[in-house]
Amino acid sequence: MIFPKEIEIIEVGPRDGLQNEPKQISTEQKKQLISQLYAAGIERMETVSFVNPKLVPQMADSAEIAQFCNDLGLQYIALTPNVKAIDRAIEAKVPQIAVFVGASSTFNQKNINKTTSESLIECKPIFEKAKKEDIFIRAYVSMAFTCPYEGHVSFSDVVDVCKHFIELGADEIDIGDTNGKANPKMVYERFSRLKDLFPETTFVGHFHDTQKMALENVLAAMQAGVTKFDSSIGGLGGCPFSPGATGNVSTEELVRMLTEMGCQTNLDVDQLLKISPYAKSLSSRI
Amino acid sequence: MIFPKEIEIIEVGPRDGLQNEPKQISTEQKKQLISQLYAAGIERMETVSFVNPKLVPQMADSAEIAQFCNDLGLQYIALTPNVKAIDRAIEAKVPQIAVFVGASSTFNQKNINKTTSESLIECKPIFEKAKKEDIFIRAYVSMAFTCPYEGHVSFSDVVDVCKHFIELGADEIDIGDTNGKANPKMVYERFSRLKDLFPETTFVGHFHDTQKMALENVLAAMQAGVTKFDSSIGGLGGCPFSPGATGNVSTEELVRMLTEMGCQTNLDVDQLLKISPYAKSLSSRI
Repeated sequence: MIFPKEIEIIEVGPRDGLQNEPKQISTEQKKQLISQLYAAGIERMETVSFVNPKLVPQMADSAEIAQFCNDLGLQYIALTPNVKAIDRAIEAKVPQIAVFVGASSTFNQKNINKTTSESLIECKPIFEKAKKEDIFIRAYVSMAFTCPYEGHVSFSDVVDVCKHFIELGADEIDIGDTNGKANPKMVYERFSRLKDLFPETTFVGHFHDTQKMALENVLAAMQAGVTKFDSSIGGLGGCPFSPGATGNVSTEELVRMLTEMGCQTNLDVDQLLKISPYAKSLSSRI
Repeated sequence: MIFPKEIEIIEVGPRDGLQNEPKQISTEQKKQLISQLYAAGIERMETVSFVNPKLVPQMADSAEIAQFCNDLGLQYIALTPNVKAIDRAIEAKVPQIAVFVGASSTFNQKNINKTTSESLIECKPIFEKAKKEDIFIRAYVSMAFTCPYEGHVSFSDVVDVCKHFIELGADEIDIGDTNGKANPKMVYERFSRLKDLFPETTFVGHFHDTQKMALENVLAAMQAGVTKFDSSIGGLGGCPFSPGATGNVSTEELVRMLTEMGCQTNLDVDQLLKISPYAKSLSSRI
């Protein structure tokens, strides 16, 4: 088995974790959470989304949060699902952006009312604008294993989306088990094949813990050579377009497992455990 | 990674799971549980312990339960921690016995008031008697990773206990993370080395879920070539001499993970999920 010396953990709690909270979380509370995570040693974090604030009011204060992150000197990621969003992100001087396209067409239809092809076409100007500003581009393949609408997601659809993202110039590709129904065998096989097909590409693993198998899936992805993983403090999260899906793998549990195995994360589980209650207090789900 | 076609699951709930219940579980309730598990396809089960009934009153009806298991035609295992116990087991016509010795001397002292060497010496007549009756012998190495008293358990102590068991003629050796503090790296490394050192020996993995890492540890042991695992329905269990340790990995969660990965267990997760609430209702812990 492979137990890498170092694993990069990307905290996604402030964005992926909180975006769907029904009650509005104040800008001050978000800053508190980001500050605490930053102080605990998190070096990269997804904190904002320049999605239409009418559709996702929770993220309406993204420009202010982005300014706060700039002042901290944090390497943060802003979700920019459309051209308007990338324009706002550039204005806010974000260092990194993320786009997402589902490998399942039904998911794309339900989530953003576009087919997979239409979603990929919309990514082109976003990538171009980001490239011009030297902004790092993370590209999410959502529902890369199963989908609540379609069930099993075909691997060739995952490959197609990756291929487009790579052609457009993504800096890293994040393979998401968005509804948390993948198993370690599937994870190992898909990541192994992706790394064979695209040896130059950096892949990130993003696992939700719906079936309480997220850590097993991390372990399996590590065996395929993946060394970068998303997680959210306190296991915050869920997806409104993935009924029943629970949060991301929790940062503290992931760090505990990795630390015990001698994989360095530059994070301290005790410090994270102190932040976790505050993160959970912001969530109405946990 | 290795995903074996078949995995043998040995149910230990009726013995390891229930033995330490503070309230007495009736013989009828135990028979109910065993019947249900048998009907669900469990082919091998640890059901009784011929420990001194004054010390463990919960297991006082072991002779009657053994008779019940004989009538069912079940391949069951009886714990026989001393010579008196093996005599009672032979009288009860059990097909399989189990003995245990901790790899941690402090654990052995606290648990049975003997050093590791004294424990191993006591095993000799038990093995001899069992062999004479053609009884299958399972030998547990308890606290094979960490110990609540000693912390880290030295691997050479684990090897020593295994060596003695093998010399005595054990049919299988069950490596126990009795207090549930092992991690996948440790599990993979210890099982790999044990299988290298003792290539002819059958090893079984026995993981408690104290740190919610039992399934990860199963996955890691599989990578070292282990294909037999203990589990308990509903995650029953704990150990009175391992403070804070929780139950075994739950049979239904283990079967679910294995089934999803295409590893056959001959068990059906939906059937197990129907039994689990009854098993949990017998426990005051869950």
